[in-house]
Amino acid sequence: MENKYIIGIDLGGTKINGALANFNGDIIAKYTLPTKAEDGEEAVLEGIISVGEMVLGESKVNKDDVLAIGIGCPGILNVKEGKIITAPNLPFRNFNVVKSLKDKFNIPVYLDNDANVAAIGEYVFGAGKGINNMVFITVSTGIGGGAVLNGRIYRGNTCNAMEIGHMTLEKDGPRCNCGNYGCAEALASGTAIGKAANEAIKKEEKTSLAHYEKVTSFEVFKEAEKGDELAQKVLNKALNYLGICVANVITSFDPEVVIIGGGVSKGGQIVFDKINEVVKDRCFESMWKSTSIVPAALGTDAGVIGAIALAIMERKDTI
Amino acid sequence: MENKYIIGIDLGGTKINGALANFNGDIIAKYTLPTKAEDGEEAVLEGIISVGEMVLGESKVNKDDVLAIGIGCPGILNVKEGKIITAPNLPFRNFNVVKSLKDKFNIPVYLDNDANVAAIGEYVFGAGKGINNMVFITVSTGIGGGAVLNGRIYRGNTCNAMEIGHMTLEKDGPRCNCGNYGCAEALASGTAIGKAANEAIKKEEKTSLAHYEKVTSFEVFKEAEKGDELAQKVLNKALNYLGICVANVITSFDPEVVIIGGGVSKGGQIVFDKINEVVKDRCFESMWKSTSIVPAALGTDAGVIGAIALAIMERKDTI
Repeated sequence: MENKYIIGIDLGGTKINGALANFNGDIIAKYTLPTKAEDGEEAVLEGIISVGEMVLGESKVNKDDVLAIGIGCPGILNVKEGKIITAPNLPFRNFNVVKSLKDKFNIPVYLDNDANVAAIGEYVFGAGKGINNMVFITVSTGIGGGAVLNGRIYRGNTCNAMEIGHMTLEKDGPRCNCGNYGCAEALASGTAIGKAANEAIKKEEKTSLAHYEKVTSFEVFKEAEKGDELAQKVLNKALNYLGICVANVITSFDPEVVIIGGGVSKGGQIVFDKINEVVKDRCFESMWKSTSIVPAALGTDAGVIGAIALAIMERKDTI
Repeated sequence: MENKYIIGIDLGGTKINGALANFNGDIIAKYTLPTKAEDGEEAVLEGIISVGEMVLGESKVNKDDVLAIGIGCPGILNVKEGKIITAPNLPFRNFNVVKSLKDKFNIPVYLDNDANVAAIGEYVFGAGKGINNMVFITVSTGIGGGAVLNGRIYRGNTCNAMEIGHMTLEKDGPRCNCGNYGCAEALASGTAIGKAANEAIKKEEKTSLAHYEKVTSFEVFKEAEKGDELAQKVLNKALNYLGICVANVITSFDPEVVIIGGGVSKGGQIVFDKINEVVKDRCFESMWKSTSIVPAALGTDAGVIGAIALAIMERKDTI
């Protein structure tokens, strides 16, 4: 497969990122267009097609050597049928993006949601390379997840598996955007950390966080590192819940590796130290000893690399 | 496969149950011996072999038509190697029961823990027949689980997946036998219900539970049904946690069916009503609408039928 290629598309609310890579994940060409969601379904579809054509053209690769297209997208999808049912910040409603791209490029096209695509990217090219039971957790504005189990992406019955951000960790906890109370996402996401800090600032007089005009999780991490007690308290509480979330995932899935990605994972060693501490306290010894908790390995190109990995993995499954 | 047969062994701390059945799960012969764990490894192994030979003899089936043996057992196992590492109330330590039975009967032998065997039994013959993504939860003295995902039993990296009884649901909750605090098992198992009731009796004056010499979950269910307020309060609290446990499983696994077995599931409609209420409150609508929560279908023979199902499923996987 050295001279064969895959196109990966990362479809987001603001940008459409595309890349063409070989089966080792080496990117040959990249291209980005604004999504222009406000222009409607057909316009965004044209954007996707343009990005595909541009990476193909720039790479100077023979069209016949491009074997498949992978596409990752947020929202509720029907992966089997290739449809975007509904997606935040995108105009698509029950839109068969797979069929449209197949008709245009005449090669197999594979669609999946952004969390699954990120998990597959880590499995094929990143921190979970070749690990047959691995869970990927992304912690940023929300908390999402994807899992490779028995060497295959696990989607569940309605393609909504691994919504671990909406696991209840505190039965009377804060309200979550989903309507439930005490979800992991409402206790431990970047958004939750920012919210908890802002509420705490109002009550506490002495904190360096009070000097900022706007406090998000970024400022909380920064001031906690400098030694601010309130920031440390807020962070410690949230990371304890994140640790419980990871511990529950380990107890349920018994994975070889848990990969943590997203903005909060960039908070550094403090994040991983706290998660490991909680997991050690709460999981069976045989399980925490056999599970590694590691940061995501794929960087800024994770979206397109993941989409390329999706196509590689799905092609293999159907051959 | 109409004239082909499987032997199933359900190895417990007090009894060794055996059965011979055809591929439809119709039991042709059954036999039971006391385990006599106190007599040591070799004696118990002899008991297992005797049970196998007895069902074979009583069934009058030709030995060559028996294709495999399945064996279910509690404890920590190495399923791949066929070893019982350690098991409560059994003398085996790092004992290769699969090899011993293979040497004796000269047919393939398959081992798995009791929760996985129960899950496979429901998948092949019971409430999860042919359902490719299903979770089995047993709620009795403890809480355990097993899952069939993408049509295969899911064991995880160290064969300890689905230890969902040890999912943390209350970070400062009661201490669990495993050493952790606030596990589902410490909040919602039969043992936990009995314990909570006994503690509540000490504090409360008016309750019909005070008339019993010994209060277990059985008496709590009985008096709650008759209208005793304290019993209802204790039960409601425990079933709320059980509901959260099931909700977290649905949010993580997105299964088509959740099957509830074990003593507590025999508590009747009140158990399923409460679980459904909590799941509806806490899970995404698309997920609770697409997941059925049902009682286990296999009755008293669940252990041997599950062991037979294990052998049928594993044979198929290796052919």
